[in-house]
Formats: sequence, C-alpha cells, structure tokens
Amino acid sequence: MKIYTKTGDKGKTGLIGGRTDKDNIRVEAYGTIDELNSFIGKAVTELDPAIFADILEDLETIQHELFDCGGDLANVSNRRVYKMTDEPIEAMEKRIDVLVEEGPVLERFILPGGTPAAATLHIARTITRRAERQVVTLTKAEEEVPAVVQRYLNRLSDYLFAAARAVNARLNVSDVEYVRSAKVFKNVGSVKKEEE
Amino acid sequence: MKIYTKTGDKGKTGLIGGRTDKDNIRVEAYGTIDELNSFIGKAVTELDPAIFADILEDLETIQHELFDCGGDLANVSNRRVYKMTDEPIEAMEKRIDVLVEEGPVLERFILPGGTPAAATLHIARTITRRAERQVVTLTKAEEEVPAVVQRYLNRLSDYLFAAARAVNARLNVSDVEYVRSAKVFKNVGSVKKEEE
Amino acid sequence: MKIYTKTGDKGKTGLIGGRTDKDNIRVEAYGTIDELNSFIGKAVTELDPAIFADILEDLETIQHELFDCGGDLANVSNRRVYKMTDEPIEAMEKRIDVLVEEGPVLERFILPGGTPAAATLHIARTITRRAERQVVTLTKAEEEVPAVVQRYLNRLSDYLFAAARAVNARLNVSDVEYVRSAKVFKNVGSVKKEEE
Ligand code: B12
Ligand code: B12
Ligand code: B12
Ligand SMILES: C[C@H]1O[C@@H](n2cnc3c(N)ncnc32)[C@H](O)[C@@H]1O
Ligand SMILES: C[C@H]1O[C@@H](n2cnc3c(N)ncnc32)[C@H](O)[C@@H]1O
Ligand SMILES: C[C@H]1O[C@@H](n2cnc3c(N)ncnc32)[C@H](O)[C@@H]1O
Ligand SMILES: [Mg+2]
Ligand SMILES: [Mg+2]
Ligand SMILES: [Mg+2]
Repeated sequence: MKIYTKTGDKGKTGLIGGRTDKDNIRVEAYGTIDELNSFIGKAVTELDPAIFADILEDLETIQHELFDCGGDLANVSNRRVYKMTDEPIEAMEKRIDVLVEEGPVLERFILPGGTPAAATLHIARTITRRAERQVVTLTKAEEEVPAVVQRYLNRLSDYLFAAARAVNARLNVSDVEYVRSAKVFKNVGSVKKEEE
Repeated sequence: MKIYTKTGDKGKTGLIGGRTDKDNIRVEAYGTIDELNSFIGKAVTELDPAIFADILEDLETIQHELFDCGGDLANVSNRRVYKMTDEPIEAMEKRIDVLVEEGPVLERFILPGGTPAAATLHIARTITRRAERQVVTLTKAEEEVPAVVQRYLNRLSDYLFAAARAVNARLNVSDVEYVRSAKVFKNVGSVKKEEE
Repeated sequence: MKIYTKTGDKGKTGLIGGRTDKDNIRVEAYGTIDELNSFIGKAVTELDPAIFADILEDLETIQHELFDCGGDLANVSNRRVYKMTDEPIEAMEKRIDVLVEEGPVLERFILPGGTPAAATLHIARTITRRAERQVVTLTKAEEEVPAVVQRYLNRLSDYLFAAARAVNARLNVSDVEYVRSAKVFKNVGSVKKEEE
C-alpha cells in the first residue's frame, strides 16, 4: 500500500469534517499531542516491566486517551460525538495521589532528570504543558473545542511529574533540589492546610 | 578557536544575504529543521548497523538533505541557487513503498513507540510535521521560499512513519493499534487513484 | 500531599506577582526553558561520570541556572530581585574555549549526532535556540524582561555545541561534516576581533 497521498503538499489538509491550512492552531494543537504521545512511547521503552508494571499500564492508557483527545480536537463535523470525558481525569488523579506518596516530601522544585525514564517523563511533562498552552489559544480562537481536553492535559502534566518522581524513588535515585528559591510546594487539600 | 561571536546577543542575527530578528518565522523554520536533524541524529545512535544498514544510510542522506533545506530557507541573497530538488523526494517515496510492506497491513492508527529507535523515529516524525507547519506559515508570509522544501518535509514525515514501523517489524515488536476509531488507512494508489 | 490544584483548569495561571493566560508569551518562554532543562537532565543520564566529570558538573550548574532564568522570567512582582547575572555567562565562555579545543579544527557544519549523549546535547542546543527566540519575542512585547537571560541562552547554545563535540571526541567518534556548502566557521577573536 501507499501511505503518502501528496494531497497535503500545498499546505492544506483534512480535519474530521473539514479542511484547513496546515498551520492552523487546531492542527498545531493535535500535532503537539502527537509529539507528546511519541515521547510517552519513548518513556515506555525505558521502563522495566518488572518494577513499573503499574506505570506502564497507566502510560498505555494515556496513549489511547491522547488519541481520543487528538481526534476530538480534529473533529469539526456537524454530527460529532466527542470521545473524551472527565472519567480518565478522575482516574489519573487517584494515580497521582498514590505515586506522589512514594517519594520524599516535596517542598522545593527538583531538577528534571535522575534516571533515563524519569528524564523522558519530565520531557513529556513539559510537552504536555506546551500542548495545553496551544489548546488554550485554540479555545480562545474557536468554538468547537471540548474543554475536557484542556483539563486532561493540565492533570496529565501533574501525573507525569508524579510518575517521574516515583520512578526515581523506586530506583533509589534522589531528585536534586533547586535550593536557590524558598519552598514552593504547599500541601494542597490535605489535613494540615492551615499550617502551610 | 572561538565559536561564540556574541553578535546575536541583542536578538538580531544573520541570514545568507541578510539580517533579521531571531524570532522571525524564517529563522524559526530552519531552527526547527535543526531540531529535527538532531532527533534524527539520535535515532541513528539507536539503530543496530547489522540489522538496519539501509535505514541508517537513508537517515544519513536525510541529515545532509535537511542541511540543504535549512540553507535554502536561510538564503535570501539575490544571486542565490537553491540546493533542494524533487529528486530526493522521489528517492524517498521509493524507500517508503519498500519499508511499508515490511509490516503487517495498516488499517488503524498505531501507538507511537515499540522499540527505542522506533519511538525516536516517531518523535522525529512529529517534529518534521512541526517544521512543515512553520514552512507553510513562512510561505504565506514571504516570497523567497522554495516550495520543494515543504513537499520534502511532507514526504519525510511519511518516511519516518514507515521507518518506525519497519524497525519494530524487524525486531518482532508488534505495533499496538488504537482501536477506538474506525479504520482510517486506505490503500491509496492501488485501487482508487482518482481521489489523489 | 496533593500536587494538582486544578486552579489552572480554565487556562489562567500564576506568575510570581501576577496572573495571566497560560498561552502568554512569558509563560511560553519559561515553559520552553523547563523543556530545555528536561533535555539536559536526559543528557546527564547518558554521560559516563568516569569520562565526563567536568561536563556533568557544568550541566548540573546549568540546570540550576535555568531555574534562575525561568524564575526571573516568571517574576513580574514590584519588589523583584533578579537571580541571573553575567557571571555564569563568563564562566560558560571559559568552558566553551576549553571544550572546543578538544575536537579537530572546525570548518564546516557537522551532522548533529554521533554518540547518544552528543545527540541529546545537540537536541538541547536546538531547544535552547527555540527558548532564545521566544525570549526575543517577549522582550519586544514587554518591559520586565532581564536582558541577561537572552545572552545566557545565546551562549548556552554554543556551550552545548562545544560539549557535544567534546563528548564525541573523547569517545573517538568523528563528527560527519556537511560538505555541500563552503567552509562556514571562522576563527573569531583570534586574529580579527573588530567584526564582533
Ligand atoms: C514559576 C513557577 C514554576 C516554574 C519554575 C520557575 C523556574 N525557576 O524556572 C516552572 C514552570 C518550571 C514550574 C514547574 C512546576 N510547578 Co510551578 N510554580 C511557579 C510559581 C508561579 C512561582 C514559584 C516561585 O519561584 N516562587 C518564588 C519563590 C518562592 O521565591 P524566591 O525564589 O525565593 O524569590 C523571591 C524572594 O526570595 C525574592 N528574592 C529572590 N532572590 C533574592 C535575593 C535576595 C538577595 C533577596 C533579598 C530577595 C530575593 O524575590 C523573589 C520573588 O518575591 C508557583 C506559583 C506561585 N505564584 O507561587 C508555581 C507552583 C509552585 N508550581 C506548582 C507545580 C505543581 C509545578 C509543577 C509540578 C507543574 C508540572 N506539572 O510540571 C512543576 C514542577 C517543576 C519541578 N521541576 O519541580 C504548584 C505547586 C502546587 C502545590 N501543591 O504546592 C504552584 C504553587 C502553582 C499552583 N498553584 O499550582 N513552576
Ligand atoms: C485526525 C487524523 C490524524 C491524527 C490522529 C487523530 C488522533 N486521534 O489523535 C494524527 C495527527 C495523530 C494523525 C497522524 C497520522 N496520520 Co492521519 N488523519 C487524521 C484524519 C484527519 C482523521 C482520522 C480520524 O480520526 N477519522 C475519524 C474516525 C475514522 O472516525 P471515528 O473515530 O470512528 O469517529 C467517527 C464516528 O465513529 C463517530 N463516533 C465517534 N465516537 C462515537 C461514539 C458513538 C457512540 C457514535 C454513535 C459515534 C461515534 O464520530 C466520529 C466522526 O464522524 C484522517 C483524514 C480524514 N479526514 O479521514 C487522516 C489520515 C487517516 N491520516 C493519514 C496519515 C498518513 C497519517 C500519518 C501516517 C501521518 C504521518 N506521516 O505522521 C500519521 C499516523 C499516526 C499513527 N500513529 O498511526 C492518512 C492516511 C493515508 C492512507 N493511505 O490511508 C489520512 C487519510 C490523511 C490523508 N489523506 O493523507 N492523523
Ligand atoms: C544558515 C546558518 C546556520 C544553519 C545551517 C544552515 C543549514 N544548512 O541548515 C543552522 C541554523 C543549522 C546553523 C547552526 C549553527 N551555526 Co550557523 N550559520 C548560518 C549562516 C547564517 C549561513 C551559513 C551558510 O550556509 N552560508 C552559505 C554557505 C557558505 O554557502 P554555500 O552553501 O556554499 O552556498 C553559497 C554558494 O556556494 C552558492 N551556491 C550554493 N549552491 C550552489 C550551487 C552552484 C552550482 C553554484 C554555482 C553556487 C552555489 O550559493 C550560496 C549562497 O551564496 C552563518 C552566518 C553567515 N551569514 O555566514 C552562520 C554561522 C556559520 N553559524 C555559526 C554558528 C556558531 C552555528 C552553531 C554552532 C550555533 C549553535 N550554537 O547551535 C550551529 C552549528 C551547527 C552544526 N551542526 O554544525 C557562526 C560561526 C561562528 C564562527 N566562529 O565562525 C556563524 C558564522 C554565525 C555567527 N556570526 O555567529 N547555522
Ligand atoms: C507551576 C507554574 O507553571 C506555570 N504554568 C502553568 N501552566 C503552564 C503551561 N501549560 N505551560 C507552562 N507553564 C505553565 C504557572 O506559572 C504555574 O504557576
Ligand atoms: C493525518 C492528518 O494529520 C494532519 N496533518 C497534516 N499535516 C500536518 C502537520 N504538518 N502537522 C500536524 N498535523 C498535520 C491532518 O489532519 C491529516 O489529515
Ligand atoms: C548560526 C545561525 O543560526 C541562526 N540563528 C541565530 N540564533 C538563532 C536561534 N535562536 N534560533 C535559530 N536560528 C538562530 C542565524 O542564522 C545564525 O547565523
Ligand atoms: Mg498545571
Ligand atoms: Mg503529511
Ligand atoms: Mg547564537
């Protein structure tokens, strides 16, 4: 079979239910989600299944969800049904809460890195945030944008932060703190809220 | 020798035959080609020459061609001669047709990843597409932009997809399908040629 | 503890001393510095401490300095004190001068890649340049932007180039030259200083 169609050689391309310039912010946004998805695919290849079965399961779920997100962003057809819902966000929050407890108490920023997989997860975290910024721009510019995608990306970047820390913690690699600022993390939403 | 000249410390920089702001879309476009080139350099380090001699040869050729593309984009001089032609595109199409047959029939999107080199090739694929989007913007904004560069990038992203699949296939790693959409790939050019 | 606060779910976020849209160019700029920092964290995991102690020390210093830069860019408060100064730039210049001498004389562009760590350093180099472009845009748009950050990023991209070459040289991997252009590197600062 032939995968290249040459139809996009002049700078226009297809959406689901439309056609637009390739440098349209909508295409930019799902293009970045594709980039993000690829970095998650990379992190998957760096995680030992014997130690990280849970995180690997999360990441494969996330890869599918990112296709849901990308498809929803690409979809401007009249009879569209969006695939994303708030459910995966809630599931991800539960996982964040678990993973974050694996590392030592977090008070200061940490240098992104440590082990190879953690470094890649940090990279994916920052690309998630780039995708989020582009969805914000898209949402300001156009109407057919499901708000749940933006929430999903916001939470995903926190998941990836928590996962990177957990990976280092399980491999006994300490995160290096950035010490040239005051303490920045507050214990949001737990018991001792008043003390912070 | 000294490699830093400090001449760009205030945000202006040199083109071939001109001078401009560093955040000019032209500089952005060849800057992204440089980023892409670096990811291809990364993929090269992850491929075993005993198994992937052909793909390694392709990738080194592509690295040189990306310099041709970048130089052409940087070139606004009056007496300029562009380096890129359609020939490398045709050569790449032949390679895509070969590589795509190595994997199983393609019907649905696949999760980017699998083996380390395939994951990096998917990353490079998405950065190629970012570069393509920027060249589209540049072409709309300015006159001296060789159209062949845009075609080259469009085809390169398909080459990188085909190469990523072939890498996984040779290493007996199956690509995971994204199953939550209908079949998306059509056998272009074999039966129904009219839609091209 | 909970790391996610959900406060940014609607596209607005906090600066140091302010609040803004997430797709603001200021947020974009320090977001890219965060991305860059993550790639440097990745390179760190690929360098053998027995061979690259000096470069590893540089890179950890740089990771802290990138937080200084990011924090300064995020800081729009009235009583702000910037953390970045010209001192780290001068220190980096000394290191560039040392590292650049480790490789063979540089006359032509080289293909980014070689060894895994060098490839990652080249990637980081190109992302540094993306960050630099965004700081240029930010500086044109707003007033509270420390000019030293832009200089720092400009020099950092040269440092990363020099480091990538030194890594390959120490591992006896020759950089492949791009031969389809004339010689591009001049020995700046040794003989003819006037052109700076
Ligand atoms: C900027 C910022 C970032 C930047 C980091 C900045 C940088 N340096 O590059 C980036 C984008 C990288 C970032 C990332 C993240 N962040 Co953040 N970040 C912030 C933010 C806006 C400010 C933090 C900060 O630096 N404060 C200033 C610090 C504490 O002050 P300071 O350095 O000590 O300096 C002050 C004084 O000391 C004085 N000063 C400085 N130097 C000197 C020198 C002298 C001599 C003197 C006298 C004074 C002086 O001036 C300064 C300003 O007043 C806060 C929100 C907020 N508004 O507080 C969130 C915040 C801390 N981040 C948060 C989160 C969740 C993250 C991420 C996990 C997000 C993600 N998923 O990726 C990551 C973690 C990154 C990591 N590696 O650890 C959350 C934490 C939530 C919680 N549970 O507590 C916050 C609270 C935002 C929020 N509401 O959600 N972040
Ligand atoms: C969006 C898109 C992408 C997105 C993927 C979207 C995502 N999910 O993130 C991205 C940018 C990642 C992408 C990448 C690629 N793509 Co693409 N892509 C498309 C596009 C525009 C739409 C595909 C799609 O999702 N269709 C909708 C699917 C089939 O429908 P659906 O999910 O089943 O949902 C519909 C219904 O089922 C219903 N529905 C959904 N849910 C529900 C639920 C209920 C209850 C009900 C009742 C209904 C319902 O509503 C939906 C809309 O009608 C097509 C072109 C086109 N216009 O078709 C190209 C296309 C498929 N892509 C193509 C190519 C080549 C690629 C790439 C190889 C490009 C590259 N070099 O990188 C990669 C491959 C990526 C991979 N990993 O496999 C080519 C394939 C060419 C061929 N030979 O067939 C196409 C045809 C474009 C073209 N003309 O060149 N792509
Ligand atoms: C474009 C450019 C880049 C591009 C590369 C272009 C590409 N191909 O993708 C990118 C962005 C990648 C780049 C990166 C870097 N660059 Co640069 N780059 C330049 C620039 C602007 C032009 C270089 C160039 O290609 N010149 C044209 C060449 C020499 O001509 P040519 O290819 O032979 O073609 C001409 C003729 O031959 C004719 N021609 C072409 N084909 C044909 C065919 C026929 C038949 C005929 C008759 C004629 C003909 O037409 C052409 C135009 O006149 C110069 C500054 C300048 N204005 O010179 C800096 C410059 C060379 N770069 C520099 C630096 C420092 C770098 C980096 C190290 C920066 C960094 N930290 O990342 C990297 C190194 C990258 C690497 N991998 O080696 C410095 C070098 C400083 C020094 N000490 O000498 C320079 C001088 C800029 C500066 N003042 O600081 N760079
Ligand atoms: C942790 C800090 O990161 C910044 N922030 C919030 N969302 C993003 C994003 N998508 N990209 C970059 N920076 C972001 C805000 O300043 C926040 O307070
Ligand atoms: C496969 C699908 O990817 C989208 N598409 C086409 N070109 C690009 C690009 N440069 N960047 C991101 N997305 C692109 C179109 O929607 C196409 O149909
Ligand atoms: C080496 C060449 O790279 C280009 N250049 C200078 N600064 C940047 C940057 N931040 N991003 C991309 N390209 C840049 C200029 O054209 C310079 O001459
Ligand atoms: Mg957030
Ligand atoms: Mg295409
Ligand atoms: Mg420079």
